[in-house]
Amino acid sequence: MPHITLNSDEPGIRGLFRFRPETARPLNELVEVLLRGPSSLTPGERELIAAYVSGLNTCKYCCSSHSAYAAAQLPGGMALVEEVRADAASAPVSAKLKALLGIASAVQQGGLNVSEEDVAAARAEGATDLEIHDTVLIAAAFCMFNRYVDGLATIAPDDPASYDVRAQRIVADGYLGLLAESKAQG
Amino acid sequence: MPHITLNSDEPGIRGLFRFRPETARPLNELVEVLLRGPSSLTPGERELIAAYVSGLNTCKYCCSSHSAYAAAQLPGGMALVEEVRADAASAPVSAKLKALLGIASAVQQGGLNVSEEDVAAARAEGATDLEIHDTVLIAAAFCMFNRYVDGLATIAPDDPASYDVRAQRIVADGYLGLLAESKAQG
Repeated sequence: MPHITLNSDEPGIRGLFRFRPETARPLNELVEVLLRGPSSLTPGERELIAAYVSGLNTCKYCCSSHSAYAAAQLPGGMALVEEVRADAASAPVSAKLKALLGIASAVQQGGLNVSEEDVAAARAEGATDLEIHDTVLIAAAFCMFNRYVDGLATIAPDDPASYDVRAQRIVADGYLGLLAESKAQG
Repeated sequence: MPHITLNSDEPGIRGLFRFRPETARPLNELVEVLLRGPSSLTPGERELIAAYVSGLNTCKYCCSSHSAYAAAQLPGGMALVEEVRADAASAPVSAKLKALLGIASAVQQGGLNVSEEDVAAARAEGATDLEIHDTVLIAAAFCMFNRYVDGLATIAPDDPASYDVRAQRIVADGYLGLLAESKAQG
């Protein structure tokens, strides 16, 4: 049961967005730009970083959600997402993405944990400054979202299908589209 | 030296805002609502939570900044901020704020660390659901900002006066006012 009384029975962060629309708006604008805005990293790759960090933070709702969103947008699907979450170093992703996941893992531990070597490794595999910047901010942002969702003890559905349904809608309409729809329903 | 090549010599998160205006906008909208929007917690109390969490994350730039912003808006000034950062439990703040700082400290460790007891303690001192919500989100947001600032190895000025100058401008114009001004200069 959530720690506070929400004004809907929506699970995870959706219930928090409904409860506090003033903060929901910038939070959704942030993920829309970071995960779906113009970038040399694909939306699938960026969702994979979000899912990976959420897994490291053991946030069931965010990890299930962003794993489904990544799987829906990566050729390797959920099998690839699960390989990355289990052991990113040996998963069949590009050397550049592997190095960016290494940076994300360091950020999850704490900002000061990101070493010059982590950054040099990513750059050696062709990562640009903007890709390194966005990787750090995606990882940092999910250290926020994970704490927000679990710090208020929101509910995470068990049924994987509920996340898959949501994934199709994120791919079609994006985070801001879904937020607008949620408001219209409210 | 920052891990990436920025397009200005602005310190801390200001250099990152200048580098990536697409993400700067929602990030500043978020802190403006959370730290300065309508709330039963004063801006000084909310900045104090931000400073406290940034101290726990040992993020020099954010802790120095938000300590100065809190000090500028609390009757106890910097002496009070330093007492809270040194030992929140014995600092001369209200029992409610002390309990909210306890929640913030749990969030800093990880969302799942916030216990029913932490929340009950805050509620017993009169904290509302919205205050508990905002405390969790402020603490979570600074776990993001701290990782963003340090994960990219931005520079934190040593001179306390530089943070004090900034504090006066935050109090006068807010986060969005300063962001607009930074753009105009750029």
